[in-house]
Amino acid sequence: MSLVVMKFGGSSVADADSVKRVARRIVETKKAGNDVCVVVSAMGDSTDELIDLATQISPLPPLREMDMLLTAGERISMAVMAMAIANLGYTAQSFTGSQAGIITDEQHGKARILDVTPGRIRAAMDVGHIAIVAGFQGVSQETKNITTLGRGGSDTTAVALAAALEADVCEIYTDVDGVFTADPRIVPTARKLDRVSSEEMLELAANGAKILMLRCVEYARRYNLPIHVRSSFSHKEGTLVMDHPEGADVEASLISGVAHDRSEAKITIVGVPDNPGKAAEIFEALSQAGVNIDMIVQNVSAVETGLTDISFTLPKTDGPQAAQFLGRVQERVGFRSLQYDDQIGKLSLVGAGMKSNPGVSATFFKALADSGINIEMISTSEIRISVVTRDDQLDDAVRAVHTAFGLDSASGEAVVYGGTGR
Amino acid sequence: MSLVVMKFGGSSVADADSVKRVARRIVETKKAGNDVCVVVSAMGDSTDELIDLATQISPLPPLREMDMLLTAGERISMAVMAMAIANLGYTAQSFTGSQAGIITDEQHGKARILDVTPGRIRAAMDVGHIAIVAGFQGVSQETKNITTLGRGGSDTTAVALAAALEADVCEIYTDVDGVFTADPRIVPTARKLDRVSSEEMLELAANGAKILMLRCVEYARRYNLPIHVRSSFSHKEGTLVMDHPEGADVEASLISGVAHDRSEAKITIVGVPDNPGKAAEIFEALSQAGVNIDMIVQNVSAVETGLTDISFTLPKTDGPQAAQFLGRVQERVGFRSLQYDDQIGKLSLVGAGMKSNPGVSATFFKALADSGINIEMISTSEIRISVVTRDDQLDDAVRAVHTAFGLDSASGEAVVYGGTGR
Repeated sequence: MSLVVMKFGGSSVADADSVKRVARRIVETKKAGNDVCVVVSAMGDSTDELIDLATQISPLPPLREMDMLLTAGERISMAVMAMAIANLGYTAQSFTGSQAGIITDEQHGKARILDVTPGRIRAAMDVGHIAIVAGFQGVSQETKNITTLGRGGSDTTAVALAAALEADVCEIYTDVDGVFTADPRIVPTARKLDRVSSEEMLELAANGAKILMLRCVEYARRYNLPIHVRSSFSHKEGTLVMDHPEGADVEASLISGVAHDRSEAKITIVGVPDNPGKAAEIFEALSQAGVNIDMIVQNVSAVETGLTDISFTLPKTDGPQAAQFLGRVQERVGFRSLQYDDQIGKLSLVGAGMKSNPGVSATFFKALADSGINIEMISTSEIRISVVTRDDQLDDAVRAVHTAFGLDSASGEAVVYGGTGR
Repeated sequence: MSLVVMKFGGSSVADADSVKRVARRIVETKKAGNDVCVVVSAMGDSTDELIDLATQISPLPPLREMDMLLTAGERISMAVMAMAIANLGYTAQSFTGSQAGIITDEQHGKARILDVTPGRIRAAMDVGHIAIVAGFQGVSQETKNITTLGRGGSDTTAVALAAALEADVCEIYTDVDGVFTADPRIVPTARKLDRVSSEEMLELAANGAKILMLRCVEYARRYNLPIHVRSSFSHKEGTLVMDHPEGADVEASLISGVAHDRSEAKITIVGVPDNPGKAAEIFEALSQAGVNIDMIVQNVSAVETGLTDISFTLPKTDGPQAAQFLGRVQERVGFRSLQYDDQIGKLSLVGAGMKSNPGVSATFFKALADSGINIEMISTSEIRISVVTRDDQLDDAVRAVHTAFGLDSASGEAVVYGGTGR
């Protein structure tokens, strides 16, 4: 007998019929002899509707109350899911994040999980119930206030519970068949990956692949927990995110995929005096502003002026905040001006096989050059190369790189289930 | 400084504008120097919408999950109320029934409050917050499951919290101006009562006056807590439900009002052998069925047959259950047949002054006789006379009695606020 954690997102439980369909799926897993713990998100657009309501009430609602409000969404979906399961002749009990023992810090709206004490979940499963847990929410350790985990929070709930329950697998159900070599909306010949290492998945998630949130992959990696990303609309195997038991996967494919990201902007700080400590002053100011910096490039300074330019990328949403804080230190640092550019895109090639294959960079840059793509910034890790391009060239860039590394299937649909991902 | 508990029903918080209006009202009470604890129901029709959703999922949802589902309604209204108050520059914190310390038994859907431990509410008020509490819900003592209190539950939450917090008054806000001498929809000349004793309010509530639920009045009476029933749409004084500090109110009016009730049916058991123990067998069966019996009448038995008829009234909703259980004992008890009649109405005249005024009954029955009302059953308490009539004669009966006891105002509206209730 295995212990399976199954997580269903909002689109999988959008209405009564979807809930019933998912309930049958859950019962199948239970019938197969597993202990089952289910994590659900709020139904369909219900979270957006609650946000709309809050906006009608107040332009700046207190975060504690926003969390109290939004957690009503999962409360509804988990209760109706338990009802749908009961209607199939199986017993289910629903639990809020607090009841499930999801203990967080005090940061409303983006709380981090500090501990998971799933005693009630374990007890419910021990007497044969299917446990249904509200995703995205917890209770704070100090003040016992209700918190939410922020974007992708339900995935994190599922993985954290799976780790605490020592589950055999955490199944993340979604509306696509798994993790693909690229976004199929941009690359129709993209292939589903049967398996991907957690290190690669981390890089993919951190660089724009939206299928799993970074936090959730980090959590699973820390606890060595396999994640199975699969579709709630079919019974096909999805993508297994897990590491080879003996460390490096000998059969690792060279490249697992091409991620892209349109959520970042670029700030260039023009005319920075090339003295020691100037960069530190700049990035300290940005750190105080709470801005997440991604890539950084500094040019060699011009000999005649002794001035240099520093460019970095950051989430578009952090742009105004960053500009404000840089404005405050402009005089002290002595730079000339700021340039803000949000018409950029980022492309990342990810593959564990890169480590031992020096030819990858050459193939990569040649593919981009042959397609006339101008590269504005470059950054690399051991298993990733990322470049910044013009936004309107990004799709072409993704397709060019995908093709250059032989990731295209003969026809997108036919090979998606062919299992040639590695 | 006083401590005031304010309770707002679903119609007072039906939409964003209503919530903002009520928030201003709450802030006024806080500004006046009071500690304020607010109890809210779910917004408008949201509870019915949740019930609809459950019905789509399952014809017979588990009660535990139904409670989990329905409690989402107050969670939403309390969070947005706290937001609306924050938007006015005051701080508010919302609390679920569980967080507010509403401890109940395990009966999902109709839980009874066992204890109230409002430590968090007290602490929030002590640091100047307005506490917002979800009505209608609690947490069970044994299993720590979420429970709901059933019909009128939010009023009960308010009164129970007010008692535990030793509040100076529990204000129940509604969409009418207070407690009236009769239902103004039937008697346009009905007057608002400025004050009514808890004993009278108990009789009015138990006999069809819908403004306060019986449980809530019982709770307030037990703790000697004043209830102020008033409109959330005006600042006029409403009706104060409280007992005179020296016991009997020397200025008590003869009659406080006429209640009516269309929710009952009558069952007549025809041809019951007039032997000792037969009535006991019948009512034991009904008790096992969980049927709430109201009035009972037994005729004198006919000498020639030794048979008698027993009639009783019960909630229409209990009718099928009662008929089923009586069917089971028919052979053993030996009665002939059952008659079920749901075309009845009940009228109750309530007044503390009745105790010392023997002329009341005569005036009462003469008024009904003069209006050609046929009386089918009669029951009395020390401060109440009730009769059962045909449903279609009930409105006329209410008006006749209201007039006979001089309760009519010169014009309904003019005297409603004239304070002649006692």
